[in-house]
Amino acid sequence: MSFAELDHLCRRLEALGHAQAMLGVDEAVNMPDGGAEKRAEAMSVLASMAHEMATAPHIADWIDKAETEDLDAAQRAAVVEFKRSYINRTCLSSDFVARQVNAAMRCEQLWRQLRAKNDWKDFLPSFENIVLLAQEEAARRADVLKLSPYDALVEQYDPGSRSAEIARVFADLKGFLKTFIPEALEAQARRRERLPLKAFAGPFPIERQKALGLELMKAVGFNFHHGRLDISHHPFCGGVPSDVRMTTRYRTDEFLSSLMGMLHETGHGLYEQNLPHDLSHWPSMKARGMAMHESQSLFQEMQLSRRPEFWEFALPKARDILGLNDVTIEDLLAHVHRVERGFIRVDADEATYPLHVILRFELEQELVTGKLAASDVPEAWDAKMQEYLGLSTAGNFRDGPMQDVHWPSGAFGYFPSYTLGAMMAAQQWAAVERSVPGAAGQIAKGDFSGINAWRNANIWSKASMFSTPEIMRQATGEPLNAKYFEQHLRARYLG
Amino acid sequence: MSFAELDHLCRRLEALGHAQAMLGVDEAVNMPDGGAEKRAEAMSVLASMAHEMATAPHIADWIDKAETEDLDAAQRAAVVEFKRSYINRTCLSSDFVARQVNAAMRCEQLWRQLRAKNDWKDFLPSFENIVLLAQEEAARRADVLKLSPYDALVEQYDPGSRSAEIARVFADLKGFLKTFIPEALEAQARRRERLPLKAFAGPFPIERQKALGLELMKAVGFNFHHGRLDISHHPFCGGVPSDVRMTTRYRTDEFLSSLMGMLHETGHGLYEQNLPHDLSHWPSMKARGMAMHESQSLFQEMQLSRRPEFWEFALPKARDILGLNDVTIEDLLAHVHRVERGFIRVDADEATYPLHVILRFELEQELVTGKLAASDVPEAWDAKMQEYLGLSTAGNFRDGPMQDVHWPSGAFGYFPSYTLGAMMAAQQWAAVERSVPGAAGQIAKGDFSGINAWRNANIWSKASMFSTPEIMRQATGEPLNAKYFEQHLRARYLG
Repeated sequence: MSFAELDHLCRRLEALGHAQAMLGVDEAVNMPDGGAEKRAEAMSVLASMAHEMATAPHIADWIDKAETEDLDAAQRAAVVEFKRSYINRTCLSSDFVARQVNAAMRCEQLWRQLRAKNDWKDFLPSFENIVLLAQEEAARRADVLKLSPYDALVEQYDPGSRSAEIARVFADLKGFLKTFIPEALEAQARRRERLPLKAFAGPFPIERQKALGLELMKAVGFNFHHGRLDISHHPFCGGVPSDVRMTTRYRTDEFLSSLMGMLHETGHGLYEQNLPHDLSHWPSMKARGMAMHESQSLFQEMQLSRRPEFWEFALPKARDILGLNDVTIEDLLAHVHRVERGFIRVDADEATYPLHVILRFELEQELVTGKLAASDVPEAWDAKMQEYLGLSTAGNFRDGPMQDVHWPSGAFGYFPSYTLGAMMAAQQWAAVERSVPGAAGQIAKGDFSGINAWRNANIWSKASMFSTPEIMRQATGEPLNAKYFEQHLRARYLG
Repeated sequence: MSFAELDHLCRRLEALGHAQAMLGVDEAVNMPDGGAEKRAEAMSVLASMAHEMATAPHIADWIDKAETEDLDAAQRAAVVEFKRSYINRTCLSSDFVARQVNAAMRCEQLWRQLRAKNDWKDFLPSFENIVLLAQEEAARRADVLKLSPYDALVEQYDPGSRSAEIARVFADLKGFLKTFIPEALEAQARRRERLPLKAFAGPFPIERQKALGLELMKAVGFNFHHGRLDISHHPFCGGVPSDVRMTTRYRTDEFLSSLMGMLHETGHGLYEQNLPHDLSHWPSMKARGMAMHESQSLFQEMQLSRRPEFWEFALPKARDILGLNDVTIEDLLAHVHRVERGFIRVDADEATYPLHVILRFELEQELVTGKLAASDVPEAWDAKMQEYLGLSTAGNFRDGPMQDVHWPSGAFGYFPSYTLGAMMAAQQWAAVERSVPGAAGQIAKGDFSGINAWRNANIWSKASMFSTPEIMRQATGEPLNAKYFEQHLRARYLG
């Protein structure tokens, strides 16, 4: 029974993954500084144990034999997904991985120091090395996976997505945004003439913010029997599906950044909590890639929680708990619907965000294929920023190509996931509106059961049993289509 | 280089141990209930991975070869300790271990239910099975270790300690306590006539109690750069030496039980934090057995923190933080020096505690050798309780032989550690007084540096490089001698 061998291996990998996930959470939430060195050592040993276990040569035989065994559909899906991840894990030599990990660690450290100093020149040699290694990685993976080099990288983050398809929807979206953003800014200016943006009167005590956050998380479906909320420097959703650990951080001068962040992470958390519970050790039962995960957090944040109806339900609670007596829904929406062109991707609103991603998607393809030299990135970046957002980053490396950790850490092919997720979320919402009569009205009453039932049936329960594009097709009846996201933006910002 | 192989294995075992320790802490401190099932599964898989790795047959060859390699003294000590633990880990078949673990889990579950119901009859069959398995374990271990069956069990908790030696010091102590306890109770009654026991005016807010605890922990040397204090249902000291996780629990009606508990656990924590940092993955660099660990917590609690001088330093702080305005040192000492005969070991004071342990030590030897049948335990227990503490447990199983988890969980040979630790702590304190001039005066000033330097040089830095009796001999100049503990009790309670 080779399937039984794979099954047993999956249980061991799941236990190691459980330990790694929880140690990661503990590190961010609880660990005193002095624990860092031994923690890093333990994490590194656990990672190599997991890697060795998951890439052992005899696993190839187990997979071959399991493919010939009499298995049910779920078992077959597990073998397919195990094979996919085995091939992806084993197509790089351990020598190459070690070289790449070391180079990425050095480049990331350098990036942390030099970004603060706006020092591109001293960063460049290390970054050039990272690009060379990414090219090598892409070539090696492409060779095994029979994909283009860039697609072979995308496959690591978002299985089944291909750059031709991504380019198609991104081109559509880019064309749309070119005219949409000026219109949205103009509409916003008109609204502000009528209703100036109002600063809410703080301070907002942390305990109150937490109470409001917990109440809204619970209302939208987060299960605190299988999760909790803590504080960390960078908010995240971590842990394991049976025990999802969410974090936020609080400012006392305003409450929306923490609250919207919590709701965003809650989208990730709901996905994890509602993956199939049985056989959770099988790779086919885990969350599907980065784009799908981001679609769940953005669905929660952008499609549900920034919707006016959400605040019909949430504002009275915020008033009670935070004492926002003179704040109207319109005052609040003016904040959560703010559009502004800016340099920094992570600070961008949902309308301008895709242009930051498209810029990176276009440049990283050229970097991976060698059409763009690493040394020419600042110039190319500046040109695209001027074209897409009307902002120049000439000489401003810190707020230009040095702003993200992804490239210095060797993650090429990741950026599209963010905007794919945003588009998928909008397309999912359109499907919800077709399938769940009165969905928006339910939100206004704080009733998320119908919407969550749709998400559970169409997204969460599918886990990794299909590719991202296939899950989208099954859930929404068509391939990814930029028009839903465009309709969403138009309705929200021009409506 | 077989030593290099062992070294590498030790690093892997340390990483797994790190994960297990931290998952254990998280489970007690943070985990939501719904996380329990998958956590238990992960812990069990990690435990069997560690067991497999640590007991692989080829390790025997590595040890044999390492013994012939050109090693320095520290490396040789590591091999000795590795060999000791390898033999102890491998002398039971995995079939037997599985049988024993299952039986212990069942018996422990039953114990939890039936203790509450005072139901010895339904508990007995499962307990009889546990005793049989303990006899079998003892015989198998004795065979390999060339020790008596009971000594082979003691060796698991307190390497190098032998029952003949334990019996010798326990006999001395038992004789002493027979006359001492009535005298101490009489002296206490006289003191109370002069100064009635005063209840301190609460409530004591948890945040204040925590602030006081943190301040005292810091003062006695706990390093918060490498540790932290949390709350859990059962207080413990867990984590790893580089990141020691302490817990307590608070009542608001009184503060001493939590505070003394924290100081007790801090003794464990100081030991862990001050083990040699380099090569911490070698078994020779880990804390030496249960008796030595208990000696460190009892040194902290009984020898240092229940000493009058400690309160010269601590009471002003307690007054400031908790607002104990009208409490004198005498009022406080009346609480921390209270002697009272009782049924329950864990509630016992330091004077009566040893009799609870000696009773168990005497009975468990007879159980393991078969001289006492499991069914006769209640009668034997009652007889000894009457003889040692003047209390009858006839028909009161719950507060008699069913009060501890140790036997139902299969831990025979563990109990002596508690009282060995108490005696070792008193003997260590006597050695400190000889080596650190004015030690008690330093405590009164809140200066623990000289005392901790002695502990570091003589106990903490020795880790597991020697047996428990050998570390005691080196540290105090003689084998374990009950007279120091007796002197301590006499000085404190009759003085």
